Amino acid sequence: MQPKQAGRRRFLKSGAALAGLAMAPAGAAVLVEPAMRGEAAPGAANAIEDMNGVEANLYGRRSRFVTTTRLQRTLTHADPLLRREAPLPNPHRPETLSPIDQQMGIITPSSLHYTTMHFYGIPDIDPAEHRLMIHGLVERPLVFTVDELKRLPYVSRIYFVECDGNRPNPQGMSVVQTHGRVSCSEWTGVPLSVLLKEVGIKNGASWIVSEGAEAGKHQKSLPLTKALDDVLVAYGQNGEPVRPDQGFPLRLIVPGFQAIENVKWLRRIKLTDQPYHAMRDDVSGYLENPLQRDRAWGPKSVITFPSGNQRLPTPGSYVISGLAWSGGGAIRNVDVSTDGGKTYKAAEIAGPRLPMALTKFYLPWQWRGEEAMLQSRCVDEKGEVQPTEAEFARYWKMTREVLYRRMARLGHCNWIQPWRLSADGFITNGLEPVPEVAEHM
Amino acid sequence: MQPKQAGRRRFLKSGAALAGLAMAPAGAAVLVEPAMRGEAAPGAANAIEDMNGVEANLYGRRSRFVTTTRLQRTLTHADPLLRREAPLPNPHRPETLSPIDQQMGIITPSSLHYTTMHFYGIPDIDPAEHRLMIHGLVERPLVFTVDELKRLPYVSRIYFVECDGNRPNPQGMSVVQTHGRVSCSEWTGVPLSVLLKEVGIKNGASWIVSEGAEAGKHQKSLPLTKALDDVLVAYGQNGEPVRPDQGFPLRLIVPGFQAIENVKWLRRIKLTDQPYHAMRDDVSGYLENPLQRDRAWGPKSVITFPSGNQRLPTPGSYVISGLAWSGGGAIRNVDVSTDGGKTYKAAEIAGPRLPMALTKFYLPWQWRGEEAMLQSRCVDEKGEVQPTEAEFARYWKMTREVLYRRMARLGHCNWIQPWRLSADGFITNGLEPVPEVAEHM
Repeated sequence: MQPKQAGRRRFLKSGAALAGLAMAPAGAAVLVEPAMRGEAAPGAANAIEDMNGVEANLYGRRSRFVTTTRLQRTLTHADPLLRREAPLPNPHRPETLSPIDQQMGIITPSSLHYTTMHFYGIPDIDPAEHRLMIHGLVERPLVFTVDELKRLPYVSRIYFVECDGNRPNPQGMSVVQTHGRVSCSEWTGVPLSVLLKEVGIKNGASWIVSEGAEAGKHQKSLPLTKALDDVLVAYGQNGEPVRPDQGFPLRLIVPGFQAIENVKWLRRIKLTDQPYHAMRDDVSGYLENPLQRDRAWGPKSVITFPSGNQRLPTPGSYVISGLAWSGGGAIRNVDVSTDGGKTYKAAEIAGPRLPMALTKFYLPWQWRGEEAMLQSRCVDEKGEVQPTEAEFARYWKMTREVLYRRMARLGHCNWIQPWRLSADGFITNGLEPVPEVAEHM
Repeated sequence: MQPKQAGRRRFLKSGAALAGLAMAPAGAAVLVEPAMRGEAAPGAANAIEDMNGVEANLYGRRSRFVTTTRLQRTLTHADPLLRREAPLPNPHRPETLSPIDQQMGIITPSSLHYTTMHFYGIPDIDPAEHRLMIHGLVERPLVFTVDELKRLPYVSRIYFVECDGNRPNPQGMSVVQTHGRVSCSEWTGVPLSVLLKEVGIKNGASWIVSEGAEAGKHQKSLPLTKALDDVLVAYGQNGEPVRPDQGFPLRLIVPGFQAIENVKWLRRIKLTDQPYHAMRDDVSGYLENPLQRDRAWGPKSVITFPSGNQRLPTPGSYVISGLAWSGGGAIRNVDVSTDGGKTYKAAEIAGPRLPMALTKFYLPWQWRGEEAMLQSRCVDEKGEVQPTEAEFARYWKMTREVLYRRMARLGHCNWIQPWRLSADGFITNGLEPVPEVAEHM
């Protein structure tokens, strides 16, 4: 099923290949001013980043006083996030969480985008050597270079990407631990529909199976209807090429769906008549499970300030601040409660309110030193309302103990995350502890 | 007029100061997990960027195959961009141009944002020491710390910033040289109107004079009406603190106006009854000149591919691509011509179409090997149309020779930039040379 050397067989079938696009050969658009721009051998620009003085300005850096980084965490077999029968392909699966408590606005800086990897290691791909093959139930299997993709019609959209492991839970000490697996970028690329039109979809095709180029060859199945709707083969992220830990040089972007569908280091798309349950992947299986109600994220929001592990030093005026998003479209409104959900006030939306993008909200609040329970609730443009933990559990007819034990299989945990503010200003997780889960999370 | 130690006199008048905001003391929201996040002494995170392996992932980097940088250029006295009577404060004024020919989408990566400096050097400001003073014709002069500003109501908006020196001209070999002084970021900060309400505007105030903290203390005057409309005191850029070369820790963002109004390293705002003509600045004077018709940029667009210094290797299918923007609001539509403006076709808008933000457009085009003149023309939401060079010159009743000689004083040069495509695929500047200017540009 895997091509050994996709790069060598550029056209699997000749003749009709790329006929509609009549593309120019690779190597177009050669720039003639590399020396002026300080470009030299590959790697030179990274070296420039390390230098002081004027030359360092060629690729700018942040202030030495700004030291925010991602939070690193290593998952192990014992982790309930990974609980499964077969052993993991790699015992230690690292993830880096995005410091969303410090995020300003809706764009996540590419350097701070969260990463979760199913197979250890980021492939070091030369984009000139990389290929994307589209085959299976198609009229004309094709292989595209990255340069060819960049010369096709494109779109650029601001979308969130969120790992299914991003779950409100009683054990998260900070909002980074509970919700640090969501980020938002402007993604630029070719609509997959353009490419599928080019290869010609055969009768009977109803799924696509996408595959990455990393060591473990992550695979994921996606209904063809979604693939034809708004899916992108992205080569750009926040104005420059997709970052290596986000899939350089090509990433599938599946707006509003769980991140695992957004295959990184994309090298192959096969059209099929059924989903594949890839056994080599430690997680691919669990999302084609009967408990899952929808592949798109429901409405979700969380307060990032004040949130767990932070402290309000004295009573006074504050601005409660947070992020909201939904796979169902744009956020219609966000409400904030300071009394654990008894009453809510409408929050202000601070910035762009774009479909399937992070949305920033805030509510000015006067804290008089009382105990409080802070939480946010959002509604998306379809009118769907973010549920409480109790509502979510009721929907699945589970006790909350069972809910937290099974949440890895439920997916899309989008319930409300309360933060408890004590009279001395400390903020802790407002969800009631669940003893059985506590030892693992 | 300048405070010697703004930090020492936190409140210039006591009593009413900050009464409405009742702010908590600095130091709120202390994070308790620095060790987990790899945070140590200031500067540590920058060191992490230089390391290989897992730790480098705490603040991600681009691929070693991606080496795009800004283009550096040094202006000298002889440069017509700087032509003036008095000597420059510094003989060599460096600027770095943004590689807009390679920009994907509408967000400019912060590391590739263009910079123009009126006084050499980027101040190394400790944000904990930095203050913003607002005084002059106000009821309650106030001094704000950066932390205090971050706890106020805020907005986050995607806006372009463009230097007045960004001018279509016959001497620019590439689109970076002609148009590389425009960039677009998501800016997060406090509306200036919130701060002005807090200090209380006295009768008679009709201008603000803003001042930066760099060696030369750049000053700029702005009408109070604009200051109260949509101006921001920004601390965030693309999701993280404003970059040092963009004004860390505070920058005034004046949407749609020329960049020189967007005072970097903002430390002082004085309310006055008239504009100041700061003599110490090499450029402040020229924008309060009688020739200037409007402080907001008119509609402007440029084709970035194919553009000067690029080459199309063979006839075939291409996607003509570019950027459009306007200080008058959102871009309504963009048209593209391949015959020097005789006929136009409507371009596609590839991404978000936001007010006073870069807007990405493209038009698929079949090149059959003929000579062509490629140019774009945009219309903003007010219905204003981007002019040709001839229309712009006619408006000012100038010959084109005079236009190019005086353009530094006209400001807002937003005419159409044509690119000439020869039969062998080379692209050069399509504006007719102007001999007198050629030797300087």
